[in-house]
Amino acid sequence: MIKQKVYVLRLSHRVERDKRATMHTFLTARALSASGVIYSGQRDSDLEKRIQALVDRWGGAFKVRYERNWKRVIENWNKKGVTCHLTMYGINVDECLDKIPKNKETLVIVGSQKVPKDVFQLADFNIAIGNQPHSEIAALAIFLDRLFQGKELKRKFGGAKIKVTPQEREKKINFSL
Amino acid sequence: MIKQKVYVLRLSHRVERDKRATMHTFLTARALSASGVIYSGQRDSDLEKRIQALVDRWGGAFKVRYERNWKRVIENWNKKGVTCHLTMYGINVDECLDKIPKNKETLVIVGSQKVPKDVFQLADFNIAIGNQPHSEIAALAIFLDRLFQGKELKRKFGGAKIKVTPQEREKKINFSL
Repeated sequence: MIKQKVYVLRLSHRVERDKRATMHTFLTARALSASGVIYSGQRDSDLEKRIQALVDRWGGAFKVRYERNWKRVIENWNKKGVTCHLTMYGINVDECLDKIPKNKETLVIVGSQKVPKDVFQLADFNIAIGNQPHSEIAALAIFLDRLFQGKELKRKFGGAKIKVTPQEREKKINFSL
Repeated sequence: MIKQKVYVLRLSHRVERDKRATMHTFLTARALSASGVIYSGQRDSDLEKRIQALVDRWGGAFKVRYERNWKRVIENWNKKGVTCHLTMYGINVDECLDKIPKNKETLVIVGSQKVPKDVFQLADFNIAIGNQPHSEIAALAIFLDRLFQGKELKRKFGGAKIKVTPQEREKKINFSL
């Protein structure tokens, strides 16, 4: 079971341009057992509704929150928790994973396009999932998988109305209405 | 060093709707040491040019190929290699990773929207990176990370004109022109 609380901060969301990439980011956070996401940039109530509808059907307690002032989110988090910024310019994840305190709530910060310099200064760790141009969705996935040591894939989602029963060659879904 | 050749087949690309998600998929494949990608759906020469320009600057030998007939790609691959379809309906990756032959070239199949039933029948393995609604980009990332056992993040990209030097708090890029 995963006890560690991890939230994801998605920076600079743009309603039109980022709608799918941000949705992928949120789905990844939820599927890989983050407790919720906070996003800044443009507010997107359609996105919030879509993720909430998915949580209602597929279960688990996953929260989405909008915050205009991302800097304040990071500064407040630093007072009690730990902040990890995923960036191709940072230190390889293998070299810093053990240094992240596991007894504190963790905020994982992912950008979209250009990330403000302040983020590099404010974050406790700037972590690279490889130093190549990359996808923040992929980086988030690998980071959570490493942080939770693969346990996140076996988690049960409480209160689900829909569940998949794993199959070798077909789709099997159970509904409880 | 990674010896295993892995290619990614991206199904049903739609130029407008998928341009960013497919680009994320290709970047993920490249950054995590796949040898190349094949895509079907709509041909997208702009996407091909953008990934080629990135490969020219950042190095490595990464190939992009369009194939209209994805079914033939899978059938041909099955004659000598192994095909792994990533799907939330499949068997958990932890239960099937060891069964994938490591001495054969591997084709990792990822869909966008609804994946045709035939794919489930044709693939050697239908593999779930968790059975929750997900991002194919995230699933691909975790699958490659597990398959290559984390070695893919330490790979050198030959012939690069641009390289990142990992830093704790800033961006450092070296150019060789």
